[in-house]
Amino acid sequence: MSKPAIGFVGLGAMGFGMATHLVHEGYSVHGFDMFPASLQRFKEAGGIPATSLKESAEGKSFYICMVASAPQVQSVLFSEEGINATLILCSTVAASYAGSVATELQIRGRGDILFIDSPVSGGAKRAADGTLSIMAGGTDEALQSGCDLLQAMAAESKLYLVPGGIGAGSNMKMVHQVLAAIQILGASEVMGFAAQLGLDAKQTAEKIIESDAWTWMHENRFPRMLEEDWNPGASALTIILKDVGIITTSAREHRFPTPLCSTAEQVYLSAVLQGYGPKDDSSMVRQYYPSPITSVTTPTTEYQATALQLVLDLMLGINLVAAAEAVTFARYLNADLAQFYGLVRDAAGASKVFVTKGLEMIEGRIGEKAPAASQTIDEAISRLETAVQKARDLHCPLHLGNTALNTLLMVRRAGFGNEAATSVVKVFGPE
Amino acid sequence: MSKPAIGFVGLGAMGFGMATHLVHEGYSVHGFDMFPASLQRFKEAGGIPATSLKESAEGKSFYICMVASAPQVQSVLFSEEGINATLILCSTVAASYAGSVATELQIRGRGDILFIDSPVSGGAKRAADGTLSIMAGGTDEALQSGCDLLQAMAAESKLYLVPGGIGAGSNMKMVHQVLAAIQILGASEVMGFAAQLGLDAKQTAEKIIESDAWTWMHENRFPRMLEEDWNPGASALTIILKDVGIITTSAREHRFPTPLCSTAEQVYLSAVLQGYGPKDDSSMVRQYYPSPITSVTTPTTEYQATALQLVLDLMLGINLVAAAEAVTFARYLNADLAQFYGLVRDAAGASKVFVTKGLEMIEGRIGEKAPAASQTIDEAISRLETAVQKARDLHCPLHLGNTALNTLLMVRRAGFGNEAATSVVKVFGPE
Repeated sequence: MSKPAIGFVGLGAMGFGMATHLVHEGYSVHGFDMFPASLQRFKEAGGIPATSLKESAEGKSFYICMVASAPQVQSVLFSEEGINATLILCSTVAASYAGSVATELQIRGRGDILFIDSPVSGGAKRAADGTLSIMAGGTDEALQSGCDLLQAMAAESKLYLVPGGIGAGSNMKMVHQVLAAIQILGASEVMGFAAQLGLDAKQTAEKIIESDAWTWMHENRFPRMLEEDWNPGASALTIILKDVGIITTSAREHRFPTPLCSTAEQVYLSAVLQGYGPKDDSSMVRQYYPSPITSVTTPTTEYQATALQLVLDLMLGINLVAAAEAVTFARYLNADLAQFYGLVRDAAGASKVFVTKGLEMIEGRIGEKAPAASQTIDEAISRLETAVQKARDLHCPLHLGNTALNTLLMVRRAGFGNEAATSVVKVFGPE
Repeated sequence: MSKPAIGFVGLGAMGFGMATHLVHEGYSVHGFDMFPASLQRFKEAGGIPATSLKESAEGKSFYICMVASAPQVQSVLFSEEGINATLILCSTVAASYAGSVATELQIRGRGDILFIDSPVSGGAKRAADGTLSIMAGGTDEALQSGCDLLQAMAAESKLYLVPGGIGAGSNMKMVHQVLAAIQILGASEVMGFAAQLGLDAKQTAEKIIESDAWTWMHENRFPRMLEEDWNPGASALTIILKDVGIITTSAREHRFPTPLCSTAEQVYLSAVLQGYGPKDDSSMVRQYYPSPITSVTTPTTEYQATALQLVLDLMLGINLVAAAEAVTFARYLNADLAQFYGLVRDAAGASKVFVTKGLEMIEGRIGEKAPAASQTIDEAISRLETAVQKARDLHCPLHLGNTALNTLLMVRRAGFGNEAATSVVKVFGPE
């Protein structure tokens, strides 16, 4: 009885999991969604369906908004039925949009509403388990008010109170998504290349997961990619396309280069033109290989080892430049880099390269000369260019691989070829 | 009777035109091709069909090789039926391949053969008219021997004797093709964007041709793009794909960045996966717009002017970075830049931006501060990013536009935002 009543809008894959988890935690959750079927499902899961936005908001001390896109959010928040409580915006939006919400609340004389900008990460399963990563920004008063409720939806160590006020949470999610957006396509690019090389898909996926080229996204997407389980419900291509659009739009506003994110975005847009928008993003493997990758016939053992090394080198090259793109953009936005590192390490943007090289970039350990044991820019180029050339010989597109290589070549042309590979950050400008 | 007998291999679209033009000029041309139909066609055009490579080569003082790709060339040149004359290699090959031919001639003790590395440009019609651009490199003795025959195939001012020996001709063609490869895709990208904006295709094409955004490729491809006349015979996608592969492979060998060429290459490879390989390269417009661009309904006049400006700004941004990519790569390869400029200006790689900004780049007029009348890097970014953002809002891929913008943003991050737009060359390294 001590838990407050919650209003909730947006009972999609993520929102449904979050709202029903709060029900299980003992909150009375009044949920609304524009789809009657979602409302019915919510009712069956123990939630209290509201017949209108107004009804979901009236008399609640907390209101959680988890609709998919900013215009949807706007129509909800600013309508006559507008909320009257601590407002927790969990949708993924641009920081500038979160800021515009705060401004509009002031203009409308509703400065009394405590507003928290708190996007989430982790997928539908962790939403339902209450183990999301949550990146929350706002005034101290707002954060204090919403803290317990946010913690109820987050894993114990994964509620990040992001310094910087409104927009800071969204920016933190955005720089995390730099890695997610690149590595989602990276998973398809590397498995398409492996198929073109004639490698067994399942074995290659296992080897990648065990290797230094590991990323969370690769491991997460491989099963669906192998089974060609591309039905909606997991991660539709349109979801990451929306997120990457927030990244590249914000980057343009800041005039900051994001070569790998932009490349991924263009490939996503091309796939949408081909009708892949509603499909799971692991279907992007079709942009690299025209038939199921599990149908590949495996070559001799000796060739396999060489070919697998090319696959790993491709991934390592992409992951290196991806780490630099994310770290430098986060720094440019004045994000708390220690918090950023801790968040990424345990979230969907994680990669082994980020954990090692990303940390060196964050800590500024960008040596003038590479330590003897450390890879140089020139060495990173050598490995990546061998993979890129092999793909070219096979007529396999490598969108990310080529962009990563050209980025490294620009660093080299700027005179940093002998420096440690982490010097790739220099192409993104001064600190 | 004073004209020498010529051996000729490779009677494809280009080779057939060249060989029959020489027939019309009074040469007795002994042609060979692996396809009997091509031989028959050559006979009907007045040529002398040879039944074997050996027969085409025996007793001729000149031998012209115009087969499509390097491995084909190699099997012809080094077989038992090998040639015994002044050898003129007109195929488009990597400079390193031309060099390897010269080396192998020495190793086989055939240093007596005069060898000219002389790729051509201009398309099938100019081949048949004898008005090609030809870029010939070799020893003085070889060039003296082949000069008249080369001139017979070239337009009056378009036989370029390229200093630097074997490989110099191929390099000159390659750096020209940097512009061709980018602008072929550029034509499709810009017209796909125009269609997404709702602009009338024919009117837009006319406006582009009249504008400062003009390129030779855009003007040349527009008619086939509008008519969707994509049957083989004009310029199959596989042809430019081969050329761009020579560029990116050579660039990797030299560790030189070619961001726009690499981007174009990946889009070409993606289209090949979709079955576009044998189609005319103007079919690349399908990578940007899913139905005929002539089916677009035209919006209001006021909107048209704004939308057209976005289209032109996209082209100007791409053409600017393309000029920088070509000029800096040519300089890196120690090409004669004055000759390069003269050649491009009158050939398929030409653009108005190259004629103006490209010349400034070549002459080193890369001011610390932009002259008052001249566009700065920041201004170029502003115009291009508006087009890129609009395309993103429309879910239109802009592969080249995004790469060009990220390249400009890197120049800006390096501290050159206030300099003249020609300073984009700086991202490609020192002179």
